[in-house]
Amino acid sequence: MAPVVPRSGDAIFANVERVNAELFTLTYGAIVRQLLTDLEEVDEVNKQLDQMGYNIGIRLIDEFLAKSNVSRCVDFKETAEVIAKVGLKMFLGVTATVTNWDVEGTTCSLILEDNPLVDFVELPDTCQGLYYCNILSGVVRGALEMVSMKTEVTWLCDMLRGDDTFELQLKLLKQVPEEYPYKDDE
Amino acid sequence: MAPVVPRSGDAIFANVERVNAELFTLTYGAIVRQLLTDLEEVDEVNKQLDQMGYNIGIRLIDEFLAKSNVSRCVDFKETAEVIAKVGLKMFLGVTATVTNWDVEGTTCSLILEDNPLVDFVELPDTCQGLYYCNILSGVVRGALEMVSMKTEVTWLCDMLRGDDTFELQLKLLKQVPEEYPYKDDE
Repeated sequence: MAPVVPRSGDAIFANVERVNAELFTLTYGAIVRQLLTDLEEVDEVNKQLDQMGYNIGIRLIDEFLAKSNVSRCVDFKETAEVIAKVGLKMFLGVTATVTNWDVEGTTCSLILEDNPLVDFVELPDTCQGLYYCNILSGVVRGALEMVSMKTEVTWLCDMLRGDDTFELQLKLLKQVPEEYPYKDDE
Repeated sequence: MAPVVPRSGDAIFANVERVNAELFTLTYGAIVRQLLTDLEEVDEVNKQLDQMGYNIGIRLIDEFLAKSNVSRCVDFKETAEVIAKVGLKMFLGVTATVTNWDVEGTTCSLILEDNPLVDFVELPDTCQGLYYCNILSGVVRGALEMVSMKTEVTWLCDMLRGDDTFELQLKLLKQVPEEYPYKDDE
């Protein structure tokens, strides 16, 4: 059987159902504001955003696999590239550059070229410890866990905190070998 | 000067920044779940969703006016049509039918043809009083208030509550005459 060719992020993004990015941005802002009011502690808000993202990621992976034609990645390097070029494009309409690999090939960074989550956002002085985009790190962590990769995903740079860029670090902690009850050619 | 022709909802929607609808749907679901956990009372969640929507609507109206080329509507009937055919399309990618006008022309219903907020959503028995889409009624109310129309916006039918359709009632309470410090041709 001819191999299924993975579709580009652009092609997929052009064909999925979409909503206005500003509506999404403002809706996300409403979540963060709500959490800041309810939880009071910025650290708790960071945790909760990450957890919300995780819950979204473990569901979004299904849509990703169904629509992208991406099959098993040979290693974590390929996985990171697929997130940067296909996954982010498919869901947020942006891409990232993968960089800062460690020698083991288990830690890298995604540098986001654009970030629709933060349009019009400025953090007040009272929120300086906030990782505003923590939902995104949670989504990546949740999605990877569903394809047997346990990871730690953290923001190293954040333009809302005064950095020049958005840099999301992916660290592979453990890869659980998948066991199949059947063989591919059965 | 030649009049500026309003652009169709399709044309505008094709040209605005967008994100994946499933991501939006799941993110919105995360808000509702969070509010249910934090506020406990379903009535309070309804109110809070409406308020969040209101806060979003008073900002989205700027994007709407800037991108749609829609100018002043002659009456509330035209306003309702613009919401149904241009506004909803521009932000959610869907349209609605305007119906059920009262004789005064101040109350009508929007019947939504599709509703991306509720994909994959089922309400558990404990949430039967929930107006899951109340953020949307709040958005419409907030946006209209910024163009001097005080309205009441309520869900008459909701498929999540077992109805056949999503029917959003718009009731014009008061239209504040706008006063201009200048004339159009100055």
